[in-house]
Amino acid sequence: MSKGLKGFWFAKGTLLEDIPVELLEEIFETICLSDNVKIERIVSRGHASPEGFWYDQEWSEFILIVQGSAGLKIENERDIVALKTGDYLNIGAHVKHRVEWTDPACDTIWLAVHY
Amino acid sequence: MSKGLKGFWFAKGTLLEDIPVELLEEIFETICLSDNVKIERIVSRGHASPEGFWYDQEWSEFILIVQGSAGLKIENERDIVALKTGDYLNIGAHVKHRVEWTDPACDTIWLAVHY
Repeated sequence: MSKGLKGFWFAKGTLLEDIPVELLEEIFETICLSDNVKIERIVSRGHASPEGFWYDQEWSEFILIVQGSAGLKIENERDIVALKTGDYLNIGAHVKHRVEWTDPACDTIWLAVHY
Repeated sequence: MSKGLKGFWFAKGTLLEDIPVELLEEIFETICLSDNVKIERIVSRGHASPEGFWYDQEWSEFILIVQGSAGLKIENERDIVALKTGDYLNIGAHVKHRVEWTDPACDTIWLAVHY
């Protein structure tokens, strides 16, 4: 992070590096946080949500697949939503969802904006 | 966009498709909007900010290079900040900045989160 003359700031990082060799569990890292917004990097390696688990959040979430692919199950939707690199999904508050699968052959890197 | 049984919703899209063949000016598209947050896709093809132009925003901005590369000039910083695919930059409100260059050989696709 660098402070400008007025005390303001900017910060640079990357989503594609600094991934552990071992990845027993998915990684969730907060890379930006304010009163209104939390931005996370998520790294999955063939992971899926535990059996019977559903995300049910009080806030909306925008997710982007930066690398890899994933399948999300949305409550009351028949088909799994398949996402590949560059695809995004905007999920309203209390829309229950779960990760059915992520790419087993490469790391799937997500950007998640909670707002 | 799809409405669940409770009237809640989700919406899917992609950042890497639906790019015009001709791209005389950069494209700015709002893909998510709430009271607190605006998320845009930006597509540049060798574009840069006009001579002497600086962004000076009342809100913070998180940018991610989804594809391509770019160089940003930050006020009072000597070096241009070079960004490649997967790199992000978090820019505080009123940190003046401008786009010095974007990749001339391919489309640069940005995700911008204004918050």
